Amino acid sequence: MYYHDKRLQYPVTVEKPDPQFARMLQQAIGGVEGEIRVCMQYFFQAWGNRAPDTRYRDMLLHTATEEIGHIEMLATAVALNLDKAPASLQEEGAADGIVGAVMGGERPRHIIEGLIHKNLLSSGLAAMPIDSDGVPFNMSHIYASGNVAADMYANVAAESTGRVLAVRLFNAAHDEGMKKMLHYMIARDTMHQNQWLAVVEELGGLTTQAPIPNSFPQSEEDNQNNYNFYATSVDGTFPEGRWTSGPSVDGKGEYTVFRNEPLGQEPILGPARPDSGAQTDQIGKA
Amino acid sequence: MYYHDKRLQYPVTVEKPDPQFARMLQQAIGGVEGEIRVCMQYFFQAWGNRAPDTRYRDMLLHTATEEIGHIEMLATAVALNLDKAPASLQEEGAADGIVGAVMGGERPRHIIEGLIHKNLLSSGLAAMPIDSDGVPFNMSHIYASGNVAADMYANVAAESTGRVLAVRLFNAAHDEGMKKMLHYMIARDTMHQNQWLAVVEELGGLTTQAPIPNSFPQSEEDNQNNYNFYATSVDGTFPEGRWTSGPSVDGKGEYTVFRNEPLGQEPILGPARPDSGAQTDQIGKA
Amino acid sequence: MYYHDKRLQYPVTVEKPDPQFARMLQQAIGGVEGEIRVCMQYFFQAWGNRAPDTRYRDMLLHTATEEIGHIEMLATAVALNLDKAPASLQEEGAADGIVGAVMGGERPRHIIEGLIHKNLLSSGLAAMPIDSDGVPFNMSHIYASGNVAADMYANVAAESTGRVLAVRLFNAAHDEGMKKMLHYMIARDTMHQNQWLAVVEELGGLTTQAPIPNSFPQSEEDNQNNYNFYATSVDGTFPEGRWTSGPSVDGKGEYTVFRNEPLGQEPILGPARPDSGAQTDQIGKA
Amino acid sequence: MYYHDKRLQYPVTVEKPDPQFARMLQQAIGGVEGEIRVCMQYFFQAWGNRAPDTRYRDMLLHTATEEIGHIEMLATAVALNLDKAPASLQEEGAADGIVGAVMGGERPRHIIEGLIHKNLLSSGLAAMPIDSDGVPFNMSHIYASGNVAADMYANVAAESTGRVLAVRLFNAAHDEGMKKMLHYMIARDTMHQNQWLAVVEELGGLTTQAPIPNSFPQSEEDNQNNYNFYATSVDGTFPEGRWTSGPSVDGKGEYTVFRNEPLGQEPILGPARPDSGAQTDQIGKA
Amino acid sequence: MYYHDKRLQYPVTVEKPDPQFARMLQQAIGGVEGEIRVCMQYFFQAWGNRAPDTRYRDMLLHTATEEIGHIEMLATAVALNLDKAPASLQEEGAADGIVGAVMGGERPRHIIEGLIHKNLLSSGLAAMPIDSDGVPFNMSHIYASGNVAADMYANVAAESTGRVLAVRLFNAAHDEGMKKMLHYMIARDTMHQNQWLAVVEELGGLTTQAPIPNSFPQSEEDNQNNYNFYATSVDGTFPEGRWTSGPSVDGKGEYTVFRNEPLGQEPILGPARPDSGAQTDQIGKA
Amino acid sequence: MYYHDKRLQYPVTVEKPDPQFARMLQQAIGGVEGEIRVCMQYFFQAWGNRAPDTRYRDMLLHTATEEIGHIEMLATAVALNLDKAPASLQEEGAADGIVGAVMGGERPRHIIEGLIHKNLLSSGLAAMPIDSDGVPFNMSHIYASGNVAADMYANVAAESTGRVLAVRLFNAAHDEGMKKMLHYMIARDTMHQNQWLAVVEELGGLTTQAPIPNSFPQSEEDNQNNYNFYATSVDGTFPEGRWTSGPSVDGKGEYTVFRNEPLGQEPILGPARPDSGAQTDQIGKA
Repeated sequence: MYYHDKRLQYPVTVEKPDPQFARMLQQAIGGVEGEIRVCMQYFFQAWGNRAPDTRYRDMLLHTATEEIGHIEMLATAVALNLDKAPASLQEEGAADGIVGAVMGGERPRHIIEGLIHKNLLSSGLAAMPIDSDGVPFNMSHIYASGNVAADMYANVAAESTGRVLAVRLFNAAHDEGMKKMLHYMIARDTMHQNQWLAVVEELGGLTTQAPIPNSFPQSEEDNQNNYNFYATSVDGTFPEGRWTSGPSVDGKGEYTVFRNEPLGQEPILGPARPDSGAQTDQIGKA
Repeated sequence: MYYHDKRLQYPVTVEKPDPQFARMLQQAIGGVEGEIRVCMQYFFQAWGNRAPDTRYRDMLLHTATEEIGHIEMLATAVALNLDKAPASLQEEGAADGIVGAVMGGERPRHIIEGLIHKNLLSSGLAAMPIDSDGVPFNMSHIYASGNVAADMYANVAAESTGRVLAVRLFNAAHDEGMKKMLHYMIARDTMHQNQWLAVVEELGGLTTQAPIPNSFPQSEEDNQNNYNFYATSVDGTFPEGRWTSGPSVDGKGEYTVFRNEPLGQEPILGPARPDSGAQTDQIGKA
Repeated sequence: MYYHDKRLQYPVTVEKPDPQFARMLQQAIGGVEGEIRVCMQYFFQAWGNRAPDTRYRDMLLHTATEEIGHIEMLATAVALNLDKAPASLQEEGAADGIVGAVMGGERPRHIIEGLIHKNLLSSGLAAMPIDSDGVPFNMSHIYASGNVAADMYANVAAESTGRVLAVRLFNAAHDEGMKKMLHYMIARDTMHQNQWLAVVEELGGLTTQAPIPNSFPQSEEDNQNNYNFYATSVDGTFPEGRWTSGPSVDGKGEYTVFRNEPLGQEPILGPARPDSGAQTDQIGKA
Repeated sequence: MYYHDKRLQYPVTVEKPDPQFARMLQQAIGGVEGEIRVCMQYFFQAWGNRAPDTRYRDMLLHTATEEIGHIEMLATAVALNLDKAPASLQEEGAADGIVGAVMGGERPRHIIEGLIHKNLLSSGLAAMPIDSDGVPFNMSHIYASGNVAADMYANVAAESTGRVLAVRLFNAAHDEGMKKMLHYMIARDTMHQNQWLAVVEELGGLTTQAPIPNSFPQSEEDNQNNYNFYATSVDGTFPEGRWTSGPSVDGKGEYTVFRNEPLGQEPILGPARPDSGAQTDQIGKA
Repeated sequence: MYYHDKRLQYPVTVEKPDPQFARMLQQAIGGVEGEIRVCMQYFFQAWGNRAPDTRYRDMLLHTATEEIGHIEMLATAVALNLDKAPASLQEEGAADGIVGAVMGGERPRHIIEGLIHKNLLSSGLAAMPIDSDGVPFNMSHIYASGNVAADMYANVAAESTGRVLAVRLFNAAHDEGMKKMLHYMIARDTMHQNQWLAVVEELGGLTTQAPIPNSFPQSEEDNQNNYNFYATSVDGTFPEGRWTSGPSVDGKGEYTVFRNEPLGQEPILGPARPDSGAQTDQIGKA
Repeated sequence: MYYHDKRLQYPVTVEKPDPQFARMLQQAIGGVEGEIRVCMQYFFQAWGNRAPDTRYRDMLLHTATEEIGHIEMLATAVALNLDKAPASLQEEGAADGIVGAVMGGERPRHIIEGLIHKNLLSSGLAAMPIDSDGVPFNMSHIYASGNVAADMYANVAAESTGRVLAVRLFNAAHDEGMKKMLHYMIARDTMHQNQWLAVVEELGGLTTQAPIPNSFPQSEEDNQNNYNFYATSVDGTFPEGRWTSGPSVDGKGEYTVFRNEPLGQEPILGPARPDSGAQTDQIGKA
């Protein structure tokens, strides 16, 4: 179960509210690389964790709980960027170029607010669980496969795209408060990448953990086709690299190259059933 | 651009059509761990690839093209499992228990077909781009971040959950043809996991590639908070592991533990604007 | 604006409630081939219709309004099939095979109701705007392009897949009341197919209306590539048919065959920007 | 920010695992009436709360935090119902009717597991953020309008449909542990309904708070059309009730009845623009 | 069944077309607070209504039918705001600030039209069933629970957020015709809020109708936990209010406060099954 | 199975990158009229094709394969329009009006990039499988009904809306390279419209193929209601046209007009079940 403290995990301040930046921050809340995703992903991985070693369940709960606080920080940042936004922008506008131009007309607020759509019309200038294009977060993005190694790589992927996004937002930010908040979140993503990779290493690393799942006996997979790169170019050329020769990363095979060609035949499906709503031309003769 | 051969990548045969297994196979077509996902993910990563080294673009095209053939194999397998399915099941039913019971009534086909819903009603006993619960695939699952290392981990995660799914289907399969097809797909997932990990290794491995993105100078991230595990339990306990002490996996820090507490303050948003559609109680006094 | 009569368009009766058939009927309500789709499609086409000839707007309103009554009939049919369903099924069960087997255990209602999910849990045994797999209808399926001919073909497609679905439901139905309702809906789909095709014919038929849109001067399209079938097979073979030779259906060209090959070059994108969150390896040197 | 305790809010036990009941419980996790919805709804209402009186923000945080624990309880219940499920069902099957019949065949697990789809194939017998039909939760259901009274009614609606669902699950449950868990959740829904209604009462009740938003001067709304029931039946009949005569519930008007008729005219849109991709027939003459 | 009159419910006129306002109006069509939602919600509540008193079914049909006319008005308003929009804006542009600036370049129409995306590209300058961010309406937002009181509160919530949205649009509108249309719609929302609340009052008000559902005997819910506010703050503090002491709004309890703590234990799931696609480390020993 | 050539189907060049046009092009990738849709639609129609005549399966594979190359061309075009976009725009800005104004401020890139949202934040200036509003493509738009004639009309509709979209993009384009690419794609859509219509003609045209499906004996449909236009206007007026008199397009009936009225009765559903979570008022007396 859970507790809260109404103070924020880390300070969130905004000197110059910027509605467009608020919209960009939405990507870090409701985008597929965002904080709702990692928060819920770690929770569902923890709640469904099946393993004699309960430390992974525990660890996931610690970090899932931490992530709620990240959503909260970003939601606060969005609201502050929308706080009195039009008025503040209007003043600023007089001085600096395009914003001034945008603000100088008879309905500046309308123009700017037309760019932030639902955050204005649906939430009253607050954050929403949507991405920067206004698309609501869809929970199908919560990856919790029941396989601890697969989940760890899904988590590394989530924290990597998450840190890429945070860096892009950092580079787009002009407000010092926003840069400070983001430099904190980037740091936490550094830790979390290292944290999930540490689990794989603790379990023995790639040579014991891969291919994933390692509980399926490799003797039962097709041993003619498990370490060869398929060249599908029509002329048979292919790019050479670490993946075309030498020992495989999992230590269990040797990379080779296969010029791809059909190993199967043209598939023949049965004709349509007489009662299947097909055209008569599709229905086979008895 | 692209070419096709109307023969299949690998043989697909079904001796005893099984509509329920057809529905399960749908997960490997339209599920988030399925083949549409990896196919389109590799294509979009290739088409948007920005790097002086064009080999990654090339390699992605080879494997994306291979994956179209996997969707095709699975779509064929679904159709064959639905081919004349009811009749065949009905005969089988006489002999073996529940299936016999299910088939012995006056409308056996109705009962069985009631379990496969859209594959019967919408597609005329063919495969659809849906998962095993009939939910259509949503293209937001195509991860192509513009960062090659983040993408490689997203690909490892996709191939890991994909191989986990293929193993589950293999373990649930009773038809020899289906087992054969799946033992081939499991093998290809083994290669693809190794292939994406090979890229990370070729680029220098974790110590040069992480934290991702490695183009952001770590001196600008919050160096008090980038290698410490946050313990968020209310009593301060935490599970010890590779992630609580010792050098970090990326070789750039040392794991420590931080008993989490608020570093920020209670956030105060401005009151609602008079014209914002709030209740009067929410609107601040001037 | 709109009026209603609380009587139904056509009689809807159910003698033997059948929860599984209720679930199948949901496809005709909330499926992509269903009645919500055609109803809303015709309304949005009417409301956005731009043409000096206002008869099309009018006609669309007539039929859109008719379709509300079809959703209503189906919603009534679903509710009646769920009405006292378990009890009635239980009695029936004693007599006829699988249904009897299903009903003979200690929790027959549970088992059957477990198959109808949301109609039981969310709506209290009523119809919902979902398909037969429980997926809610998504309004992106409302095609209203602003081009009257494109819209007519979208409508023919909708009524064709709609009539195919109705036929499949008719073939799966056992209750006389349900068969009667469906034989009416099948008839209305016959009319509606003929209705939309009549518009194309009235406007002059394919030779004046195609290619769609006909307002784009064909002299500006690529006249080397507008009537040739592209053979993309790797060996250059292709299936001969009406589409490989002879005059085109729109009367403006002659079908030929082109053995496909790349007309463009390998695309080269610029390297990643230094501030774009890519890996350093992806960023070009100045 | 947030803390956790790894113990559950309330005991969750399952004596006889039941995979079908697990699927039904998913509705209370990822259904639109479920716990993810209320949890996230209260969080977003709190994080975006704009009001001089900060007690509402605080209160929302308390209850949002409580709701995380409810998702956790349900996720645990789903996993326990899937725990060793097939084996346990198989033994039980011998004794009691349909389950016995279902279990007596050669592949009982397959049949039962075919009904739980993604919980088997995607999560390895754990809970997922999906509803009982396998549809993932979509965050567009988080209502946080920026108007405190509108939000309170959205919360009452959420807790009412939530308690209705919990009652349906309670009535469908056979396991004592599940009944106990649900009798607790039903009780919490009782409190939460009362809690949100208390806010409306504290603010002055309907006569000061309605119509919502109360910050819009009613003198500016159309005072001919704000307290009359529109009879849209084609014959002008209508059902009499509290809504057709007497003082309005908000105390600001008197209910009357209006036999509806068009107050506007037939709309005329401009013809299609020449460059708009319409058919030539749609484009107006100059 | 249904009838139409091709005249509008209320006059819709636009003097100065404004494409950005057209986009904002889309929220009232396809947003979750919009008119498609209430229209379909009332229809599905009516069609599935189960109650000896058929007046509620009737009343819902009256108002659902009215709402079709509201979608029609808004769709007309969107189309009129896009009618000849660019040209008209261009002239206006010369005179007034930002719009002039926006219009003064060589491709003004392009710039403005780039902001309205799909309304330009997909519908040919007509309304679509999307919200102001272009997200299509999803029918999962149709709340029809089978419980009349729960549904009434869902309706109050829908009309409250709907009126909040209409007020925001009214405050953003500059065109007199648009303001007039919106002042009418705001008035109808006033009535509809009062209408649904009148049903609850007619049925006896909160003291007989709550907690919802009132058909579940409260003696069976957990009577230790049904009227206490859970304080989940880590320090045990909480905001006092109408919800922490005094009689409950439903008249059946007394509010108290509970400092939250775990009542359950740490959950232990069984280990992964050997055939479940987990890592070997997760599979228990026999 | 499939092959690729890394060269493009047709040349794609961009002289002046234009981020707003990139966003518009996204509609042709991930919009419902876009290339992912036709590509996947033709593939699924081919893979599920049931007919003694295998030429249709073959033909569909040829064209589906061609369409992959169209997605590739558009993805390349999007990336090139985002390539170094800001810098190039900035220079151009100095000279020409609004773009100059937009570019003259202190953070021009920020402003422009704020309009392209996810293409900047999620993909690093590459194409994504989203439409011009950032909504991801949903695979429910793949129409493959199992009826060859219904599918051909769905394909005509797809290619018609697709060509309408391509024409709109062509008309909005300023770059010669973009116009050239689009004039090619418009041409291919011309062929594809003619191709699908050719199949219907080859099969015998409307008089043998309609109504669709033609395998349902029309003697079993309601012959009182299959060729009459339903006038649903409240005053009985209707627009005369090809659809109100004369022989039907399918040659099997004669158009007439029916002034619509209810043919059924007011539906009466059973009362709510005692255990169904309804209010007590809804539950019938025994």
